[in-house]
Formats: sequence, C-alpha cells, structure tokens
Amino acid sequence: MQAVVVDESNSIIGHKHARTESDQGKDHVTNKLVETINGACAAAGISLAEIGAVGVAAAGAMDIPNGVVLEAPNLGWTNFAFRDRLEQALNLPVVLENDVNGAIWGEYHLGAGQDRGDVLGVWVGTGIGGGLILNGKIHHGEFFTAGEIGHTILTPNGKKGNRTVEDHCGRRSIIRSLTSQLASSPNSMLHELTEGLKQKIDMNMLCRAYSQGDSLTQSVINRSAELLGIAISNWVTMLAMDTVIVGGGITESLGQAYLDRIIAAFKADVFPPRCKECRIVATELKGNAGLLGAALLAQELVNNEQARR
Amino acid sequence: MQAVVVDESNSIIGHKHARTESDQGKDHVTNKLVETINGACAAAGISLAEIGAVGVAAAGAMDIPNGVVLEAPNLGWTNFAFRDRLEQALNLPVVLENDVNGAIWGEYHLGAGQDRGDVLGVWVGTGIGGGLILNGKIHHGEFFTAGEIGHTILTPNGKKGNRTVEDHCGRRSIIRSLTSQLASSPNSMLHELTEGLKQKIDMNMLCRAYSQGDSLTQSVINRSAELLGIAISNWVTMLAMDTVIVGGGITESLGQAYLDRIIAAFKADVFPPRCKECRIVATELKGNAGLLGAALLAQELVNNEQARR
Repeated sequence: MQAVVVDESNSIIGHKHARTESDQGKDHVTNKLVETINGACAAAGISLAEIGAVGVAAAGAMDIPNGVVLEAPNLGWTNFAFRDRLEQALNLPVVLENDVNGAIWGEYHLGAGQDRGDVLGVWVGTGIGGGLILNGKIHHGEFFTAGEIGHTILTPNGKKGNRTVEDHCGRRSIIRSLTSQLASSPNSMLHELTEGLKQKIDMNMLCRAYSQGDSLTQSVINRSAELLGIAISNWVTMLAMDTVIVGGGITESLGQAYLDRIIAAFKADVFPPRCKECRIVATELKGNAGLLGAALLAQELVNNEQARR
Repeated sequence: MQAVVVDESNSIIGHKHARTESDQGKDHVTNKLVETINGACAAAGISLAEIGAVGVAAAGAMDIPNGVVLEAPNLGWTNFAFRDRLEQALNLPVVLENDVNGAIWGEYHLGAGQDRGDVLGVWVGTGIGGGLILNGKIHHGEFFTAGEIGHTILTPNGKKGNRTVEDHCGRRSIIRSLTSQLASSPNSMLHELTEGLKQKIDMNMLCRAYSQGDSLTQSVINRSAELLGIAISNWVTMLAMDTVIVGGGITESLGQAYLDRIIAAFKADVFPPRCKECRIVATELKGNAGLLGAALLAQELVNNEQARR
C-alpha cells in the first residue's frame, strides 16, 4: 500500500510506502494503512488533523455509495465495509474507489486525459483492469462494477483460462506463453536470462528480451498487443469515446513499440472508420495515477462537504 | 418506410407504409417520405399544419447534432444533410436519430425499459444493431456512433466475414450456416420446406423448423444465441447496466426459447457475479419500437422549443 499527501495544487508533498500484509487480517491492514497515512503526513510536515479527507483506491469490486469492498481477491476480502472502518480509525471522511477508476480519474484531470471527452483507461499489469469516464464522471453503472474489461470474453471457443482479455493480454499470460514455448525456441535469449529456466521470467527479462529483438519474446508480446488492440476496438465501437489511456506495469516497461502494435490492431477493426480518430495514448502519471486520482476524490469530498454547509 | 402520427398519450392515431425505393435517389426518397407522412396525417384525420415536429429513425451512422446521415448502406447514402432537406420539404422541425437508438428510446419510455436504469438494446435482424441509454439519455459518444455492437469482434482469429457479432448472430449468418450445412443433414426438414433448396431459406421456414425441433436448425440457432449471450455478457461486464432488451425480427419470430439460450450463456460469463441480476428481456413494442421512439423525440423537440421561448 502507498499513501500520499497532496497540497491544493495536487502536488505530492508527502509519501509513504508499506507492505499490505493482508494475510494478517482486516484489522491489521486497517492499522497498517493508518500508520502509512500518518507516515505520509509526517513526510509532508503536517499533522493528521490538518487533513480534510482521505481517498482510497483499492483493487477489487466496490459498492461505491456504501463504501463496501464487495470482492478484493488480492486482499481476500468480500463484503467488507472498509470505508466506515477507516473513517472510525482516522476520525476523518474517507472516499473509497476502485484502483483503476482512481488511476483514470487522475489521468483525466492531471495527465493524459486532460481536455479530452469520454475516456477509457486500460491498465495492463498482472491482470487487466479498466475504468471509464463518461460525460465528465467516473462511470460505475447500476452494479458499480463497470469497467471490468479484463474479464470480457475475447475467444469464446477457448477453454477456461484461455478465453478472456486478461487470459490473453495480462503479464501472467505473457509469461505463461513464453515459459511454455521456450523449449521449442532454443535460440531465445530467455534461456540465458533465466539460466535455463532456473529463474522465473520477470519484467526485467521481458523488457530486455523484447527491446533487444528476441524473436520469441517479440512474437508473444506483439500477439498479446494485437489482441488487446482488437479488444480496445470493440470498446470504442461500443462507446465511441475519443480517448483510450493505456497504463500499468507492462505498458510503462515496454513503451511505444508495444503501444504502436495496439494502435495498429485497433485501427484495423474499429467501426465506423471515423472512430479511428480516437486517440490511444500511454499513461502520463504512471505509478502515481491511482494515488493522485484518490487524492482528487478526497478533495471533491471536502469541497462537497463545504458546499453542503 | 413507415410514418405514424401519435397523440399526446403516445397512442398511434395514424399510420402509413410505403416502399423506400432508395435506388431512385435522395429527392425521390424525401418526396416519398413527405407523401407517407401526409398519408399518416390523413389516416389520423389531421393536417400537416397541426403537427409540431417530425422524428425520423433511420438505419445507419448519424451525426446527430448536425442532422447528417454519415453512412447508410441500405439507402446508399454518405454524408447527406437529411434533416435540413426534410425540414425544408415539410416546413416543420425534424429530429434525426439512428433506428435502433430510436427503438430503444421507445422501449425505455413505453415498453420493456420502463422504470429501469441503464439499458442496452440489441436488435437482431438481417444484421445486428445496438443502442444505449445511460443516465436517462441516449448515449451517442464523442463520434455519435455509440452502440454499433454488431461490428464488434467476437472471434479475432476468424477470417473476414466470420469475425464480428453480426457475422455470427445475424439472420444473414444463420441462413448462410444452414444453407451450407444442409447437404450433410439429409434428415433436416429444411429439405422439404425449401423443396430441395429450390427456394431460399426464409424467416417462416426458420421458425417452423426451429419450433418443430429440426436438429440442424436448432443447433445453428442455439449456437448463434449462445454467442450473442457471450457478447451481451461482455457489454454488461463493461457497463454494468441493469437491463438488456433484445428485439428485431429474429427475436420476435423465435421467441422465449431463443431468449432463454441467450440468457443462459450471458449468466455463465458475465463478471462479477452480481451482474447476473441484469435483466435480459424481449422487446415489448416490437415493430413499433422505432416509430414510437422517433415520435417521442419529436415530442421532446416541441417541448424544448416551447421551453426556450
């Protein structure tokens, strides 16, 4: 988990990072988060009492109005009223949001989405997350779970584990494909990098092999980029938004070559042709997108509270 | 083309139907439409001068604010300022909308979408069209083409003509599949119905063979329904809307058995599980959905004009 303190111009003035240790239970995670927030305040040279509100962007499905974490597989939580628990622990108003929604909200106001219309965020990490801005607002939908694009079906005839966008385009799937194909590619530099698969393929190896032209790595990553481009074409055909921001660890590491493959596949399939004008761009805020988005949501909570008085 | 006149309670009080004859040019179609509108007025026992505004729902991509038909393959039109042309011909304000958007707007106010939240319309005819209601409004997106769901890619590895939702689930594709598989299904009742393929398979034959349990027809239609259910699961996973209305000729003809297959496939794949609560229902207004939707849009135009004065 990370905590930041931002000033009124949304500059980060204090920052703290800590391990989540979710295996030790909800109370422990809550206490760790309070401790991390206090640490970020200390780094900014202010006290918790000077904070107006706290924004939290967490991975998982949320019931936004009620501040409940519905399902957070990474934390092992279901139906946990996290917002209320945290408000009690901090004695401060808290706003809870999904992490990718937070990231795209950050980009929309401070990064690659500024001065744009409707925006889709596509975050490529271990899995694939999404977030939607429609008519200037985070679109949650009737069940508050809108944007779960990683779980949409890309190959209906595929077996379980080989059907969804996440199955085909997330980091986990890229590494699984490379690992399974390595034996039949004796010339791949991944043999040397992994010392004959003694080590697991990691992001560093992936980047080195990709940028140095390793043909196995390029073919696997380029195919995953093409499939992601096709998936993005579907979402733009559906919603006709004018901007798609691609972020997450894979995007930050692989850079423009990866994005160019996505864009080419998108343009080949989006409908009608005028939707090719939709801009597909890389994250600008990178690892800070979610933090800054959560800070903006906290700022809005303060403004709304003040307006209500 | 069809024209209706509705009264203030949105009941149809006059109706007229005519062939479009689009091969005879834009002026001819415009004149035919004026004639048809006059005919509908006559049937309602009123004069054109008593009409406040005209709503038009046409197949194709539209630039809504400018009233331009961008692409209407059925009419052979591109970039035609149809609204202005019709306004001049009628001397009345005209509102132009896409036909499926019109149909879903009709359902939202007068049919299966009443008292619901966000709604997706899926119209299964020769091809497949879509329309979206988000936050109580038709969602056009930044390029005004939102909802072109028939053109989303369902099988990325398929060849051209065998990749999109329309390729797999529209009437054209169902009939093509049946025709190509008929030779290897000697027991299919379609042999008799088509007199040994002397006649082309039509909707009547399709319905008879499906409802009477012809195994080839059932397998082809059920597979297309399953694939449509998977596509719908993707759109609900993306937007978390609470209602999907399925309409169009195929849906009206094949009825609940067809819809049940769609629903089962949808529930198997939608994410997260709470989105299974989304209701997938059949059109209530059927062939009148688009007409009534267009009439509602005309009514709104009159109301907005009056409010502006």
